[in-house]
Amino acid sequence: MEHEGRHVEVKPKDHSYVFNPYREPIAKVRPGDTVTIHCDDAFGSRIQSKEDLPSQALATAKFLNPQTGPIYVEGAEPGDTLVVKLREIEPTRAFAVSCLIPYFGGLTSTVFTRTLQEPLPERVWVWELHDGKLINLELNVEVPLDPFMGTLAVAPDLEAITALAPGPFGGNMDVPDIKPGNTVYLPIWNEGALFYTGDTHANQGQGELCGVGLEITSKVTVEFDVIKDQTIEWPRVESQDAIMVVGSAKPMEDAARIANTELVLWLESDYGFERWDAYQLLTQAGGLYVGNMVDTTYSLVASIEKRYLNH
Amino acid sequence: MEHEGRHVEVKPKDHSYVFNPYREPIAKVRPGDTVTIHCDDAFGSRIQSKEDLPSQALATAKFLNPQTGPIYVEGAEPGDTLVVKLREIEPTRAFAVSCLIPYFGGLTSTVFTRTLQEPLPERVWVWELHDGKLINLELNVEVPLDPFMGTLAVAPDLEAITALAPGPFGGNMDVPDIKPGNTVYLPIWNEGALFYTGDTHANQGQGELCGVGLEITSKVTVEFDVIKDQTIEWPRVESQDAIMVVGSAKPMEDAARIANTELVLWLESDYGFERWDAYQLLTQAGGLYVGNMVDTTYSLVASIEKRYLNH
Amino acid sequence: MEHEGRHVEVKPKDHSYVFNPYREPIAKVRPGDTVTIHCDDAFGSRIQSKEDLPSQALATAKFLNPQTGPIYVEGAEPGDTLVVKLREIEPTRAFAVSCLIPYFGGLTSTVFTRTLQEPLPERVWVWELHDGKLINLELNVEVPLDPFMGTLAVAPDLEAITALAPGPFGGNMDVPDIKPGNTVYLPIWNEGALFYTGDTHANQGQGELCGVGLEITSKVTVEFDVIKDQTIEWPRVESQDAIMVVGSAKPMEDAARIANTELVLWLESDYGFERWDAYQLLTQAGGLYVGNMVDTTYSLVASIEKRYLNH
Amino acid sequence: MEHEGRHVEVKPKDHSYVFNPYREPIAKVRPGDTVTIHCDDAFGSRIQSKEDLPSQALATAKFLNPQTGPIYVEGAEPGDTLVVKLREIEPTRAFAVSCLIPYFGGLTSTVFTRTLQEPLPERVWVWELHDGKLINLELNVEVPLDPFMGTLAVAPDLEAITALAPGPFGGNMDVPDIKPGNTVYLPIWNEGALFYTGDTHANQGQGELCGVGLEITSKVTVEFDVIKDQTIEWPRVESQDAIMVVGSAKPMEDAARIANTELVLWLESDYGFERWDAYQLLTQAGGLYVGNMVDTTYSLVASIEKRYLNH
Repeated sequence: MEHEGRHVEVKPKDHSYVFNPYREPIAKVRPGDTVTIHCDDAFGSRIQSKEDLPSQALATAKFLNPQTGPIYVEGAEPGDTLVVKLREIEPTRAFAVSCLIPYFGGLTSTVFTRTLQEPLPERVWVWELHDGKLINLELNVEVPLDPFMGTLAVAPDLEAITALAPGPFGGNMDVPDIKPGNTVYLPIWNEGALFYTGDTHANQGQGELCGVGLEITSKVTVEFDVIKDQTIEWPRVESQDAIMVVGSAKPMEDAARIANTELVLWLESDYGFERWDAYQLLTQAGGLYVGNMVDTTYSLVASIEKRYLNH
Repeated sequence: MEHEGRHVEVKPKDHSYVFNPYREPIAKVRPGDTVTIHCDDAFGSRIQSKEDLPSQALATAKFLNPQTGPIYVEGAEPGDTLVVKLREIEPTRAFAVSCLIPYFGGLTSTVFTRTLQEPLPERVWVWELHDGKLINLELNVEVPLDPFMGTLAVAPDLEAITALAPGPFGGNMDVPDIKPGNTVYLPIWNEGALFYTGDTHANQGQGELCGVGLEITSKVTVEFDVIKDQTIEWPRVESQDAIMVVGSAKPMEDAARIANTELVLWLESDYGFERWDAYQLLTQAGGLYVGNMVDTTYSLVASIEKRYLNH
Repeated sequence: MEHEGRHVEVKPKDHSYVFNPYREPIAKVRPGDTVTIHCDDAFGSRIQSKEDLPSQALATAKFLNPQTGPIYVEGAEPGDTLVVKLREIEPTRAFAVSCLIPYFGGLTSTVFTRTLQEPLPERVWVWELHDGKLINLELNVEVPLDPFMGTLAVAPDLEAITALAPGPFGGNMDVPDIKPGNTVYLPIWNEGALFYTGDTHANQGQGELCGVGLEITSKVTVEFDVIKDQTIEWPRVESQDAIMVVGSAKPMEDAARIANTELVLWLESDYGFERWDAYQLLTQAGGLYVGNMVDTTYSLVASIEKRYLNH
Repeated sequence: MEHEGRHVEVKPKDHSYVFNPYREPIAKVRPGDTVTIHCDDAFGSRIQSKEDLPSQALATAKFLNPQTGPIYVEGAEPGDTLVVKLREIEPTRAFAVSCLIPYFGGLTSTVFTRTLQEPLPERVWVWELHDGKLINLELNVEVPLDPFMGTLAVAPDLEAITALAPGPFGGNMDVPDIKPGNTVYLPIWNEGALFYTGDTHANQGQGELCGVGLEITSKVTVEFDVIKDQTIEWPRVESQDAIMVVGSAKPMEDAARIANTELVLWLESDYGFERWDAYQLLTQAGGLYVGNMVDTTYSLVASIEKRYLNH
């Protein structure tokens, strides 16, 4: 599938707020092309200072989490697997923002987990990006710049799903391992795969606790490939040292079950483990962390280091 | 609370299968004593070879997960916090076992998540302990010896809780960070704290996927201390680099909420963070992994590295 | 909004498998019209006998649960509420079917609650419709004909959602109270409301345990109305004796929280109860049953009898 | 097992706050005896007026939900089933109370579902009992007196479980069908069964939404029987018209799975249904309602009317 790659720049005129097969592609690329995609932040850049309280700053936003896409990948067909090699993420502004949004986040009642309580207070934090670090002066804390794509998806089969949702199609997974150097594998349901991305995070803890990572605008550079006639059920991630599956569901244990079941089956099909031996290996050496505990469903990442796979 | 410590050896005559305040202490120790506790494995040593299938080998076991305890810690009173400094875990046999038990584990229906399906097949894996490694020849895999206490508890208030359960009292958390070099903090509801431990694991992946880690018999050496007049709600763990809270609940998101809420409040009370700033810090730099996804409730570990706390 | 009603017959040429705003209306009707809608069954009539095992009979069905729609209701605009008065459901064949589908249902692992277990066996049951009763000779049981619409929806805002899903838009709720004599209220996000329905059940227990009610083809007769400038968040149902809210979510307690929170707010806004008094009233006199425990999310029905509302 | 029954009156000197096998029986009775048990209310009668706000009135209560027991039933042995025929519940005061307790109830965050939000306001409602009705003048609502036992249990095996919890042993199920005229079946793990009861409710809606039903003191009259050598896994209830199973777990779907699985197995073992036919019957005719959505685990009631069982 490899071609001598071009460099393609994708600057969207407008954004999509659903992952869907109904929108016309905004670019066509080929496997092997180097594709640089311009991304707005999750708030459409409406929050830029401590004064931009969400209830006001977002009042004009009918939808959140603008996505750049769909990008049509030539040669990709239903039943294939899309390969997304993440090459680089370049922040396109010198600060990141996070905030508390009423009834959104991991330690508050939400529109899904409803209560009759009052919301938490609104707050905005601005983190200055400087010398590879994000610095918040009020907290007097700095965290390293370690950017990743909070949202990365293909169009589902027939459905149009809000860009706030993670799922089998990828989407709003908020998984820090979806970052430069790593490769993401996604199922394909539509001609051209129809790729979307956005929601760049300069860094984020596991769980994305308050619901808002270090949100930045960015240019993300990826290279696509297509594995013909191979279907996968859920997003897979490969780093230099490990292989991972992202499962997204509620309750959270269902996400853990999905991610681990898929990883067992992957070890069985591609790495020569008998099924129950794979189950045993993950029991003794697998990783299992929370990507997000705040979105429409939760994303959990099951992993195994490659050093255990050369058996 | 520190005394010039004695060395105390605790060899139980029989075991407890509940964490409870009704059983007579089997030893009395003082803060500062070096206490070496002999522990059976989770199966009462009934499974030792591939032929010891659980349905037969465990048929004579009315209860599982035998605990050594209670150990009475002098000076410990309700409303204090028990400090357990884990010094060393010495395996007392040269192999570890794991197995598939019908209707038990993360990727099967269980007595809690009931279905009408048949159980998975039974299997036993024996891992040889050699030169600091656990080796399974069938899998052709080795994992490092990195032992920890799967179960570590104080007696609850009035209740007697099965040793299969994790909870505010500690218990069957199956959290790999409860290991030598680290310190565990537990609430105290009874005179003498009434400490129990057992279920040593030679190693284990996050989630303890099939429900059975690398089970060994052991001698664990700890030192107790008591923090007077300080109450905590859930178990805390401190390593050289990080502080952590273990929350145990179902569904799994409730465990994540507990662990992170407690960690926010800890940052507020002890580390000088305003509440919402603590929430923000954990969002951008916190860890959140699954200890077990197989016990009566699930245990999640929320953490923050100490390097972020010197603000 | 009432007009002198016409009688309109809606016979679809093909069906929709998503609730979505992207499909052209197949009919336009006015409030006050009597609208008779022809519906296929949830399997596109592919299962008609005991020999039609799902894995074979449904092999050619890329999607399930065909919906008739969208029907455009004149005068309906975003921000209004759609009123659907269910007048009559006429079965259009003399039998209903139910079946066991691999990895689908309430007492099996599923694509959401994944395990490594084998599926339950496949089975088909045919229930003869005779004299107002459904009769299964193998079971030697009869249940009364008490038909309702398993699926009834409006198009969501921007999204296209599988017809297998319930949600704020209504959808695949599988709630037996959505039946002739009762009125359903739905939010409106699109011009014309864009109404869909299908999945007629001749009867069904609470929870729809195996995932498949007594599936029939039907003609359902409804009358629409529009309440201008009133927004509701979740589907409401009104019978002669009670008012109800349907909440759909996972885990199931989130569905219960949604349904009851909405019902508290409804009592507050329309029935003169102070908020905490409404909470109290539902505590002592409310109903709470499971509509489905098998779909993409679960549907719970919170209710209060009208006799308690004339305070 | 029937004897010519005596009438036995059980007036406790003090109460138990755990279901446990460690407490001495307060009475010994025989199968066939008519046993009248005096019960305090869930608050130890500390809340009697609108001014008795829980945070103050309950400040002196270390534990809640006092139970009368254990009552030793002669002839009951581990492996038998205890039969509890509920004959009568006589309120022993002329009012019932309900209230909002901080961080307790179905529409607030709780100690299990933690958030950083403020609690709901505290409130007490007093309902006057008059002429078979409970009347609240502020709400201007009356509900019928329809009393049942919120809590009814046997001692577990080895464990001592808080009286706030439901489980396989019965306990704090808050199921309105546990009322006079109906019969409850419970597993037996201890000699004498060791029966406890309390938490009488004058009436309650499904779900016990705010967490506090219409709490009264009472005299409840029961008659015990023992079915020898029959083990059941979860509480069963039989009314004149239906048989039911109560499952208690979190998340709520696990409670629904338990209750329905047990009911399928009951239909198979006692009513001549093949397993999959039983699953089918419950799908089309079963009931499934929420007993409580507020306790340590949730209780769901699966049922089938007896008219479907004479096949």
